[in-house]
Amino acid sequence: MRTSQYLLSTLKETPADAEVISHQLMLRAGLVRKLASGLYTWLPTGLRVLNNVAQIVREEMNRAGAVEVLMPVVQPADLWQESGRWEDYGPELLRIKDRHERDFVLGPTHEEVITDLVKTEVSSYKQLPLNLYQIQTKFRDEVRPRFGIMRGREFTMKDAYSFHLSQDCLSATYQKMYDAYCRIFERMGLDYRPVIADTGSIGGSVSHEFHVLADSGEDAIAFSTGSDFAANVEMAEAVAVEPKSPLSGEANKVATPDTKTIEQVSQLLDVSAQNCVKTLIVKIIQEDTSHYAALCLRGDHQLNDIKAQKALPWSGEMQFASEAEVLEICGAETGSVGPVGLSIPVYVDRSAANLSKFVCGANENGFHTYAASWSDVSECTIVDIRNVIAGDASPDGNGTIEIKRGIEVGHIFQLGKKYSEAMHCGVLTESGKHETLTMGCYGIGVSRIVAAAIEQNHDKYGIIWPEAIAPFKLAIIPMNMHKSHRIQEAAESLYEKLSPLGDSILFDDRKERPGVMFADMELLGVPHSIVIGERNLDAGKCEYKNRRTGEKQLVDLEGLDTFIMDLLKD
Amino acid sequence: MRTSQYLLSTLKETPADAEVISHQLMLRAGLVRKLASGLYTWLPTGLRVLNNVAQIVREEMNRAGAVEVLMPVVQPADLWQESGRWEDYGPELLRIKDRHERDFVLGPTHEEVITDLVKTEVSSYKQLPLNLYQIQTKFRDEVRPRFGIMRGREFTMKDAYSFHLSQDCLSATYQKMYDAYCRIFERMGLDYRPVIADTGSIGGSVSHEFHVLADSGEDAIAFSTGSDFAANVEMAEAVAVEPKSPLSGEANKVATPDTKTIEQVSQLLDVSAQNCVKTLIVKIIQEDTSHYAALCLRGDHQLNDIKAQKALPWSGEMQFASEAEVLEICGAETGSVGPVGLSIPVYVDRSAANLSKFVCGANENGFHTYAASWSDVSECTIVDIRNVIAGDASPDGNGTIEIKRGIEVGHIFQLGKKYSEAMHCGVLTESGKHETLTMGCYGIGVSRIVAAAIEQNHDKYGIIWPEAIAPFKLAIIPMNMHKSHRIQEAAESLYEKLSPLGDSILFDDRKERPGVMFADMELLGVPHSIVIGERNLDAGKCEYKNRRTGEKQLVDLEGLDTFIMDLLKD
Repeated sequence: MRTSQYLLSTLKETPADAEVISHQLMLRAGLVRKLASGLYTWLPTGLRVLNNVAQIVREEMNRAGAVEVLMPVVQPADLWQESGRWEDYGPELLRIKDRHERDFVLGPTHEEVITDLVKTEVSSYKQLPLNLYQIQTKFRDEVRPRFGIMRGREFTMKDAYSFHLSQDCLSATYQKMYDAYCRIFERMGLDYRPVIADTGSIGGSVSHEFHVLADSGEDAIAFSTGSDFAANVEMAEAVAVEPKSPLSGEANKVATPDTKTIEQVSQLLDVSAQNCVKTLIVKIIQEDTSHYAALCLRGDHQLNDIKAQKALPWSGEMQFASEAEVLEICGAETGSVGPVGLSIPVYVDRSAANLSKFVCGANENGFHTYAASWSDVSECTIVDIRNVIAGDASPDGNGTIEIKRGIEVGHIFQLGKKYSEAMHCGVLTESGKHETLTMGCYGIGVSRIVAAAIEQNHDKYGIIWPEAIAPFKLAIIPMNMHKSHRIQEAAESLYEKLSPLGDSILFDDRKERPGVMFADMELLGVPHSIVIGERNLDAGKCEYKNRRTGEKQLVDLEGLDTFIMDLLKD
Repeated sequence: MRTSQYLLSTLKETPADAEVISHQLMLRAGLVRKLASGLYTWLPTGLRVLNNVAQIVREEMNRAGAVEVLMPVVQPADLWQESGRWEDYGPELLRIKDRHERDFVLGPTHEEVITDLVKTEVSSYKQLPLNLYQIQTKFRDEVRPRFGIMRGREFTMKDAYSFHLSQDCLSATYQKMYDAYCRIFERMGLDYRPVIADTGSIGGSVSHEFHVLADSGEDAIAFSTGSDFAANVEMAEAVAVEPKSPLSGEANKVATPDTKTIEQVSQLLDVSAQNCVKTLIVKIIQEDTSHYAALCLRGDHQLNDIKAQKALPWSGEMQFASEAEVLEICGAETGSVGPVGLSIPVYVDRSAANLSKFVCGANENGFHTYAASWSDVSECTIVDIRNVIAGDASPDGNGTIEIKRGIEVGHIFQLGKKYSEAMHCGVLTESGKHETLTMGCYGIGVSRIVAAAIEQNHDKYGIIWPEAIAPFKLAIIPMNMHKSHRIQEAAESLYEKLSPLGDSILFDDRKERPGVMFADMELLGVPHSIVIGERNLDAGKCEYKNRRTGEKQLVDLEGLDTFIMDLLKD
């Protein structure tokens, strides 16, 4: 590709409204342009990367036995009513009406459409297992689209759905997808981790997320230093921590005026936060009845909402009780609440439960109890409801926990029968019985990978593409070609010789100063460059530059094409 | 690909609601499934063809110097307001609101988005000409979606847009696109014709459609038997026809009671329809004023609305006058109207004007004039307002016209400045002047090509794919493999040897009767088959079958892989 016949569209300035580095670089390097909030046009360079990513995904899905289909973007509402998601899905689901006032949605995901398809197309156990996927445009009407394509409204996703007669069969396909995802991210040259994940609103039991590690990642991931254990902090089991320098003495009530936080209490009483217990009053409304509970954690630990929600015996969304409710239940305001003497169920985090003596609110405004103990609490349940923190023991017993940031680029679920039951998707088994199918689903954020790769691979000059997804493999940069016939001849001849490599070579034939060309090629992140200049030409040489290592090397013009072909073969 | 691990989804019965053969075969061969009116899921086999089509389009667009981008499906309304199409486009444009009640459309085409992009990204003449294209999902809310994907609502289109400083430069790129389109349809192995076309609502001047010829085509195309001339009947110039056996005598009024049509008049008066003139009263409302005109044609010719609209001097949509208006203007009902004595402008088709004497309505109910002549009409304009018919002289003077049916699969336009003027898209020229850009646009109905190819290539057994777009190149059909170890061994060994051909081989490893397998492979239209059966195996042979020619031939198993590789190389 010649830059003169291409739309390079690099920018010198960093656009003001781009917060994260990938968004800044995608705009500056001419990968995307914003059309409206959360809607982006992929410029030629961005599309080349997007297509490279999609192609690797496609190859590995095919290799793993999945079969590609293509479902419509616009889906009829009745399928969503059948599955129940028409009601459950919030305003992220864009609901539209056609010219005949019939209801449709712009597909944020395709469980309903694929389940309906399999219901009609698959009637016998002989056709199973079946794993169907597509690479396609999705739409989610995010309330606050941000970070460019990282959290856009229209985006490209690979979504796969597998269908099975048994959990064992689902588990086998799930493992194949897990392995395929590992190959996909490895081939892309990304530093990634599969982590145990929450299944969230999609439903199901077992689930893994695949994260590209980057300091700017939205998710926190807990790793073990001594094993393969990795889980989203939302999900990572937190083991009981042994208390350091425990308190002693008899329980006694102390005045703690004007203290609202653990920090203030710990300072006033000169007690480590580790020896304090914080008590949170929560509420779940289930079928018009409000259920209340007290959640107790060590003062230095944070509540994990998802774990707490699962620990409580009621369905419905957990929320914090209001100040008025806290006062009525505990006889004190939030800052002075404790577990002793409450009439509501008390759930104690494992590490808090490990404290033999602790400081806690006395359920009397302005007072705490020093050296309270769990034997003072009439009845409590010990649970895991805190976030893991760095330094915790790994739940598998090997090593300690480290926390890193990650960008979620893949998510696989064992869905079970959520959709197949609601939509009556089953087949006749070998024994002639009708059996509802068991499903898995497997997503990859194809467009998001482009941004995640940049978050992980850049420097102050621009993007440093992993070779497998780079928009171009090599740039030919002739210096002042338009003033020197020799340079032009050498550059054109090299470009001609490299034509077997297809259009993976970018030939910068613009009438620009060398500095502009160097800056643009570094910004674009082309892995390899050949610079052709007068002085080296006199010696029959040119300069090779490696974008990632910064290595420079003089190479003979004679045999240069072979040198490059060898370079790009790896 | 093994059929056992694939979703073949062939149907024995022809679905009742599929009217055209391509729709029937696409359902029966498992290419698509209907999700809702005008919305189709592409099953694996259909998607393979769709991807083959898209890939040929992409390669030829790239070869012609166009650069690929990808624009969003969802577009903000303000761009459509800027271009004026928000008002002009009918209910085919699906208008939607996001969660913040902002207006958007589902893109039926992308002139606005691309013009806005080029306006910001291209600022200098040095960046021109530029030809950007995408292969992408479009949505048109057809009032009556029909013929399967041929006229669906969601479909895949290749749309390209070129930008130029001059008409000459546009003409050059237009010619490149014309040539690229010819290569595209040639490579696909389709019998196609480029034809002169109307520019319609897209605007602009020069335009060509590309039609795949098929008896079921929605469009009529006029060809010359003696030259390259080809035009959509909508557009084909109709030359004046010399009258046969002209009338003679003086004009005289004759009673024609109960005649409403030319056929009735011609029968009653024993005069050929060629010697009758029919007069149609039409109306155009322009800025609140109704303009009326009489259109006169030979009785055996049909009015061409598009030509008539262009011939009349007023803008606004042409419509037929109401019966009441006709009565007021002519003093007679429609069946008795004629050109003599009217107070409105009279437009006479060339061939009607060639009649020295003719029969026409007398503007008195129940009466016609026999042997009227144009000298009796105070003022008339001679125009081309009829459809060409088979046997007409070709307008280029070479040969005569033949009419064939075609399916429009491509359309190219010289747009001019319609969008660039409305949206202020221009650049600085070499002399520093601001110049509005001149545009071309170039569409291909990627998904429609799949249906058009089937309309042109099928027999009673199913589809006969042109090799370049076939879902699979070759089928391996082992007869009763599950009862014979030898057959299985031979089939598996062949499949293994052909693995360098990637997944273009379909290995039918189902436990099905041979008849079912033969029928499915013929229905699918796989160009080449190898049948492995006991009897031939004894002689060290197998049977090769060609889907298109029906040719069968015994081939040695020894060297069979080489035979196939050679076969598929062509």
